[in-house]
Amino acid sequence: MQRYFIDSKQILNNIVTITNSDVHHIKNVMRMKVNDEVIVCDNLANTYLSKLISIEKDKVLLEIIDKINENNELPIDITIAHGVVRREKTEEVIRRITELGCYEYLPVLMKRSVVKVYQDRSERQNKIIKEASEQSHRNRLMILSSVISFQELINRKDEFDLCLYAHFNKNVKSIKKIIENFHGRKILVAVGPEGGFADEEVLKLDEAGFIPITLGKRVLRTETAPLYVISVFGYEFESFID
Amino acid sequence: MQRYFIDSKQILNNIVTITNSDVHHIKNVMRMKVNDEVIVCDNLANTYLSKLISIEKDKVLLEIIDKINENNELPIDITIAHGVVRREKTEEVIRRITELGCYEYLPVLMKRSVVKVYQDRSERQNKIIKEASEQSHRNRLMILSSVISFQELINRKDEFDLCLYAHFNKNVKSIKKIIENFHGRKILVAVGPEGGFADEEVLKLDEAGFIPITLGKRVLRTETAPLYVISVFGYEFESFID
Repeated sequence: MQRYFIDSKQILNNIVTITNSDVHHIKNVMRMKVNDEVIVCDNLANTYLSKLISIEKDKVLLEIIDKINENNELPIDITIAHGVVRREKTEEVIRRITELGCYEYLPVLMKRSVVKVYQDRSERQNKIIKEASEQSHRNRLMILSSVISFQELINRKDEFDLCLYAHFNKNVKSIKKIIENFHGRKILVAVGPEGGFADEEVLKLDEAGFIPITLGKRVLRTETAPLYVISVFGYEFESFID
Repeated sequence: MQRYFIDSKQILNNIVTITNSDVHHIKNVMRMKVNDEVIVCDNLANTYLSKLISIEKDKVLLEIIDKINENNELPIDITIAHGVVRREKTEEVIRRITELGCYEYLPVLMKRSVVKVYQDRSERQNKIIKEASEQSHRNRLMILSSVISFQELINRKDEFDLCLYAHFNKNVKSIKKIIENFHGRKILVAVGPEGGFADEEVLKLDEAGFIPITLGKRVLRTETAPLYVISVFGYEFESFID
């Protein structure tokens, strides 16, 4: 069933009012009619079954039929702290890790980032997140955070139960070993930009107590590494049907 | 160190003769000079340390210094049998799963493929594989197989120690449980095209003894699913440094 992410403010007395680009999607892409059913998710992680009750030129009204007890979210909150990369790569990463269940994407200005001037493209990026969340049947949107400096990343350490960074050459710990004894919820994994972390950044990460991990024997591109991380952590923590 | 994949026929008496596009890469992109060292990998999974001994207009000669005992390959051979998808998606998948260590990419014509006429783009795709293999420090190139029909996929089953397919709605087995008792080498994982497998295809897979697996609770796009598969299987089978 088609799914739309809305703001909880759009709900009043069980009626959902849609006036944004979803109107076009409902009317022209999905060609829906009154009485068709859709799933709506709000920004408080509530999921509802609803049905179309009115389709106007620039407005669609839905009536909530039932609250759905569905949870397709990972049982852990993974934040990817990613060295700033080029626009297309950022978009590709955002789209894929949203699908894979990532909690937060946190761009970090790093020494070896090819992109030196960070342009805010959050409007477009949040649109990608919304689309990917709807398509992958998530119950909440991935958080897109504002860009921060490397020092700010280090300062945020205490917000997390576990802080890791991906490194190729270091004496690294296996993800399996680290996970084995982990009982928290909030995990941060830092991934370097195109050229990797600078030596002084690795030093700062070590000093702050970030743990280096390997992503396997091959050298992954900066835009592939986050997909590996979310796939593997998701796989390990998700309770699979059997 | 820069790495180039060559054909074993290019080696004669310890001298490697390069006349293809690598010449441009060595001369103009890397701006290498005589005595610079490079790694060469041949199609027989041999890896050599070599040094430049001659740079001409359209030809570069390397002398092999030593055979390197390096293995960055996964300890299992995973084949992704992928419902034919659009050109850009195919290229994206090929690039990423090469990095992640995939053994073979096998395009399969499936009922719900959006692309109905398959165009051979193997020359361009093999170039992507070569580049991704060099960049990710692999020791062998991923095999790009010719497109086959769904029936041919079924017929190839006996070539593998384990045949799986990714399915969202079925009563699926967890990858962990399946891996636990697996001691073979050759694994095939079939992934549907944009619209997923058709019902009759699922029936055929079941009849042939392919085992359905889940890729987690979210619905992954057809171009994301292979990355998840290679990440997770690679992670599980690779003996990590600790």
